[in-house]
Amino acid sequence: MRGPDSGAPTRADADRLDQTHGLGTRDRFLLPERLVYLDGNSLGALPAGVPGRVEAVLREEWGQGLIRSWNAVPSGGGDWITLAARVGDRIAPLIGAGTGEVHVGDSTSVSLFKALSAAARARPERRVIVVEPTTFPTDGYVAAGVADLLGLELRWCDPADPLAAVDGDVVVLALTHVDFRTGAMFDLPGITAGAHDAGALVLWDLCHSVGSVPLALDDWGVDLAVGCTYKYLNGGPGAPAFCYVAARHLDALTQPIQGWMGAVDPFLMGPTYAPAEGIRRFLSGTPPIVGMLALQDMLALVEEVGMAAVREKSVALTEHAIGLSDELLAPSGVEVASPRDASRRGGHVTLNHPLMREVTAALWEQDVIPDYRDPHGLRIGLSPLSTSFDEVERGLESVREVLARVTT
Amino acid sequence: MRGPDSGAPTRADADRLDQTHGLGTRDRFLLPERLVYLDGNSLGALPAGVPGRVEAVLREEWGQGLIRSWNAVPSGGGDWITLAARVGDRIAPLIGAGTGEVHVGDSTSVSLFKALSAAARARPERRVIVVEPTTFPTDGYVAAGVADLLGLELRWCDPADPLAAVDGDVVVLALTHVDFRTGAMFDLPGITAGAHDAGALVLWDLCHSVGSVPLALDDWGVDLAVGCTYKYLNGGPGAPAFCYVAARHLDALTQPIQGWMGAVDPFLMGPTYAPAEGIRRFLSGTPPIVGMLALQDMLALVEEVGMAAVREKSVALTEHAIGLSDELLAPSGVEVASPRDASRRGGHVTLNHPLMREVTAALWEQDVIPDYRDPHGLRIGLSPLSTSFDEVERGLESVREVLARVTT
Repeated sequence: MRGPDSGAPTRADADRLDQTHGLGTRDRFLLPERLVYLDGNSLGALPAGVPGRVEAVLREEWGQGLIRSWNAVPSGGGDWITLAARVGDRIAPLIGAGTGEVHVGDSTSVSLFKALSAAARARPERRVIVVEPTTFPTDGYVAAGVADLLGLELRWCDPADPLAAVDGDVVVLALTHVDFRTGAMFDLPGITAGAHDAGALVLWDLCHSVGSVPLALDDWGVDLAVGCTYKYLNGGPGAPAFCYVAARHLDALTQPIQGWMGAVDPFLMGPTYAPAEGIRRFLSGTPPIVGMLALQDMLALVEEVGMAAVREKSVALTEHAIGLSDELLAPSGVEVASPRDASRRGGHVTLNHPLMREVTAALWEQDVIPDYRDPHGLRIGLSPLSTSFDEVERGLESVREVLARVTT
Repeated sequence: MRGPDSGAPTRADADRLDQTHGLGTRDRFLLPERLVYLDGNSLGALPAGVPGRVEAVLREEWGQGLIRSWNAVPSGGGDWITLAARVGDRIAPLIGAGTGEVHVGDSTSVSLFKALSAAARARPERRVIVVEPTTFPTDGYVAAGVADLLGLELRWCDPADPLAAVDGDVVVLALTHVDFRTGAMFDLPGITAGAHDAGALVLWDLCHSVGSVPLALDDWGVDLAVGCTYKYLNGGPGAPAFCYVAARHLDALTQPIQGWMGAVDPFLMGPTYAPAEGIRRFLSGTPPIVGMLALQDMLALVEEVGMAAVREKSVALTEHAIGLSDELLAPSGVEVASPRDASRRGGHVTLNHPLMREVTAALWEQDVIPDYRDPHGLRIGLSPLSTSFDEVERGLESVREVLARVTT
């Protein structure tokens, strides 16, 4: 993406890329002036309309509507009772899901627990859950918790060949699509098909892909997925996760946290739980209405831009970061930990160097905000709709300066 | 509470009570003009400062602080990483808990699931969970789900004598303190002691008592409790629930949704889960930061007023409602379903009449908002800090008018 005359990076380079590939969406976010924000894959930036809209919704729908806002209000607000489903249905096109396959409400950990438990209980003759050891820790932890609770075996697979661990004993293979450390992306369709050949279900953690990488879960035959909404979906701190269950499984899978909101008629209030038809059976308690407000602004923006353009910008940003790293940082011993093949890379780039912990701390001091991940990775999160090429350039320039300082 | 000259209710009566018992807190809420809101035990009113404060926190802590706000910010904001614990510690005095015994984060259903699972797993030699059949449905549903998952027996008890069902096989007795239909309040200390005599643990659902009835969980030796923050704690729609675990159990109890936020060091990100010391082990995923914002305004107000004054006003409101029902509605066949002994009653009053479903619908049409619960209960929720005596009087007058209309 450095252009045909690829030489040393120049400010004009970044400016040109912001013109040609910028999508013009950066001013749709409220970002601190001069801050270089390279951590949108931990917490996405604040969409500009959110504070005012949340304030208005609190005043109108909560303050004036009160309990009535659980129902649809003639003026168009309220209808909280269907909000988890409606937000799920808006996330669906981003991951290639259909209407009624996605719900929103719990944390990623709780969603994972429900989905893994549901999968494991559906095929009690299979006794093994497979995860990979470099996955985001909560995935391994939750899988271990489910295995412990249900008396199953937890089996670690080789990230280089997850299918080697999937045999006829495996009930579900749970993988993270885009690695939170390196940005490496699994071959989701291929692995899904391979696991199905062994008769296993597949659950994908999409935390680091949704809103950055287009997905086609239905087409690829995925069984289950969960994902986070505060990274590339800019839902705000602690915004609820989503859970995808393929329509073909919705009759057979039940999750064990049998709350009233997942019951066939929540307001019948009878003594015996019967799960709702469809995805609502994956709900448990009252969904976090206020926590789902901010998310809707970002969904509207993604709908406006389209996931293809989002991915194109994302690839351009990561290519630019890798190119800059090669030119500016490789001489200091920095190695690109992320795949160089864009088709195998998600929305962030990780740069390794033994001193990256110290480098990250020093960068934060000068308002350059990447993230750090053990053992020695500087993680450059590039949020397609809010990160500029100029920002990437200023950020990697700063890394170079800081690295020169801490190594001398 | 009708005063020494107890006769037919007059407007002056309500005015006098608002003067003497009103606490002067009604204008701390943004309530629609002329609305009679008698459903604060479903969704508490909006504290006046919330929309502006939430808007400012979104702009500052999310928009400007971004990922940095997970840490404490020198200016005093941020510190999201400890927010669930800090909010828990502010709820603690309202329920007679100590610092480090309460956390906030999931829905009530998920919190119940965790607490019941933790209890059941701690004493595997006991194989029965006891619940009562008139409890809020989610409590029974979740208990059934836990029993099913762990291969335990679910035993229903007689609400008139729950202890009769508690024998040496019972691992945990789970009861709702204040009945969501009638407002009847269990003898929490007595039942807790009785269950302990049989060697069982006790879990209390405090959804309809926290913020309305003062509690002394530590003094009463309660083991576990959960409760809701969008009723009398005015945390907003879908605000997260809290979970109490007595300090003496914190080492022994572990819950099965092993997310990273409950791990001993969330940022170590090692492959093996080890639960955190203390209440944090009951957390799973990233807590809902935005969802915990509103709640803090109400906690500040309760701290200002004190739970003793809250309860005094609550009792005065329910007494007033019962007195008005006796005078205005009993002639039409309305029966008070709630206990007449204030010491056995929570913060709401339920009035039975065969036509209450129709009455409720008609009341809503004229901006009088109580709730309806099967089979034929009109539920009058009286939120101590936002409901006025005048409102109760106007509300019950409206019930009388509507009842006269629908019965002729």
